[in-house]
Amino acid sequence: MKVLVLGAGQLARMMALASKPLNIELRAYDVGSAQVVDPLSPGISFGDLSAGIEFANVITAEFEHISHQVLAQCEASGKLLPTSQSIKTGGDRRLEKSLLEQAGVNNATHKVVSTKTDFDDAIATLTFPLIVKSALAGYDGKGQWRLKALAQTEAVWREVDTFIKEDTSGQSQAVVVEQMVSFDRELSMVGVRSKTGKTQSYPLTENHHTNGVLSVSLATNEYQSLQSQASDAFNKIANALDYVGVLAIEFFQVGDALLVNEIAPRVHNSGHWTQQGADTCQFENHIRSVCHLPLGSTDLIRPTAMINVVGTDSVPDSILSIPSVTMHWYGKTKRAGRKMGHINVSGSDKKELLYRLQQVAKQLPKIDFPEVSNYVNQLL
Amino acid sequence: MKVLVLGAGQLARMMALASKPLNIELRAYDVGSAQVVDPLSPGISFGDLSAGIEFANVITAEFEHISHQVLAQCEASGKLLPTSQSIKTGGDRRLEKSLLEQAGVNNATHKVVSTKTDFDDAIATLTFPLIVKSALAGYDGKGQWRLKALAQTEAVWREVDTFIKEDTSGQSQAVVVEQMVSFDRELSMVGVRSKTGKTQSYPLTENHHTNGVLSVSLATNEYQSLQSQASDAFNKIANALDYVGVLAIEFFQVGDALLVNEIAPRVHNSGHWTQQGADTCQFENHIRSVCHLPLGSTDLIRPTAMINVVGTDSVPDSILSIPSVTMHWYGKTKRAGRKMGHINVSGSDKKELLYRLQQVAKQLPKIDFPEVSNYVNQLL
Repeated sequence: MKVLVLGAGQLARMMALASKPLNIELRAYDVGSAQVVDPLSPGISFGDLSAGIEFANVITAEFEHISHQVLAQCEASGKLLPTSQSIKTGGDRRLEKSLLEQAGVNNATHKVVSTKTDFDDAIATLTFPLIVKSALAGYDGKGQWRLKALAQTEAVWREVDTFIKEDTSGQSQAVVVEQMVSFDRELSMVGVRSKTGKTQSYPLTENHHTNGVLSVSLATNEYQSLQSQASDAFNKIANALDYVGVLAIEFFQVGDALLVNEIAPRVHNSGHWTQQGADTCQFENHIRSVCHLPLGSTDLIRPTAMINVVGTDSVPDSILSIPSVTMHWYGKTKRAGRKMGHINVSGSDKKELLYRLQQVAKQLPKIDFPEVSNYVNQLL
Repeated sequence: MKVLVLGAGQLARMMALASKPLNIELRAYDVGSAQVVDPLSPGISFGDLSAGIEFANVITAEFEHISHQVLAQCEASGKLLPTSQSIKTGGDRRLEKSLLEQAGVNNATHKVVSTKTDFDDAIATLTFPLIVKSALAGYDGKGQWRLKALAQTEAVWREVDTFIKEDTSGQSQAVVVEQMVSFDRELSMVGVRSKTGKTQSYPLTENHHTNGVLSVSLATNEYQSLQSQASDAFNKIANALDYVGVLAIEFFQVGDALLVNEIAPRVHNSGHWTQQGADTCQFENHIRSVCHLPLGSTDLIRPTAMINVVGTDSVPDSILSIPSVTMHWYGKTKRAGRKMGHINVSGSDKKELLYRLQQVAKQLPKIDFPEVSNYVNQLL
């Protein structure tokens, strides 16, 4: 079996690591260079997209911001899983919101806005505070505006209008104006759906962000009471898309209810803990599902946390002296704000996990991990 | 950090998989073709041994039957870990037995035999039944003779004499005549030693062989009472060799005592269960130790078994439907008797493990896995 992944970043790399023991050969299409590479040894080109399509039995994606032309070419081969529609939905908040409505899944009250008239209508209909999010691109905190009162509307509109007009995506840009949700915490969940429609969900994960970028994920099985609500949302969304593969859902928890914030039609940063904490990791389960192998169990085997390594290419070796600390570097060149790797930490129970997490946090330089220590300490 | 592994088989491949997340680049020296390759994408040559030595910061080995000339060239670079003496000791029963005596570790009573006079002396001194094992090469049941009574000695000597004379290794062949040990079971243990002399041992593993080749390994933590004896033997042996890396020891259990049968100065087939069952797998710990990173915990996290896949390149996909079943293919071309992959099976306790193991065994074709079902059933 041969798999082509659209995108040649760390997610393709970790899929490749999960594929090797299954004797599945994986190559990745680097959208920047428009060349097919081996994500475990980049540098040698295996040709262009057509060569990659020819090579593969199955084509999948590691991210949702892929040109529609590339998606169309892949879909025409009959090998693309999940469908281009699923991938596009993850890359366009308009499609995403319409999917959530269609699937009957709780989400924040919102309006799609392209013009000043739409915007004024949204302001008139929705209740402050509002959050304005770009429809296309703009994850990890980019392309977002907060709108707390009527007095700000003109200023925000000017920025939004410029943003819409300056968009170079070639698709029509817009924004979604959402009523801000006063949530207790952000949770996310990764699940997997097979071609035959079988679904399995991983335990809900608690996430902490720093400057809009995921910093720490914590998977402990303690959100059992919300798990069936989350799995239900996953099933509705995945079934509505006739989805095949791993899909991530970000939720807002408001009391006993979960609202879907957004979805990602792919393996997800908040699911990296599954490499050490779950029976089958998200990367293997994605590969299993798109290659029509039986899905692996998504059970938690040990409470596990993940710490993102952002913008630095070194951490103290001494953290590896702490039991159940596993380093995952992505082999990338350092750049400010770039996700360079992650650290997984496990324990036999939550108490042991938090103790180890605290030991790790103490050794991580504050400059590279500004909020990790504080976040971990307030968990204790 | 860059590592060259002497030997380009599945052990180098699994070391490479463990190295990627540590940002350690690993290449392997294929002794057959005398070329350096990437064990994850073989086919492209990265030059000869000299090029490999030049490339590496550290050189290590995946097997002990490496020509002394290659070992000397690597050791001269100052990069070889463990030492050539450690590697040679694993490849020569004479050195191995002398190490065990020197380290004060229990082992079977034996004599080294090169000539008819030595052989007659051994027969006169030792008590039947005896087992005759070649000093060089000959693992997995090759180069061995059983000698139950005096009447067989002349016939066995003729075979042994021919074997010694026909040896083409370029080193002087001999045999070790050992008093056969009436053991309760065979156990093995993998441990790791750092450059600073720190040691850690994995739990003892119970092994079942079919036609002299490892078939199933079982790691359950149930040999706790023997664990300190085993760790003590590991420490004595590893310290005597000033060993760096992972080293395996095969024991005979006789009542409450352990006798060392043989050692392997490398990661070992009976340690493959550590990939799913231990906190840090043997491959990562070997790489950590030779690269001077802190050793990882060797604790058992889940009772885990390993089933070897020998001589076949397919197993029913349906076994992947059983929770905690992980497939590890080596990407090799099928050949009779060749180790092609292994299957790891875990459970939250021994009972669950054995239940799952039985489910897996039921689905494996008897022709490819002749004894697995029987072995598993008698465990229940």
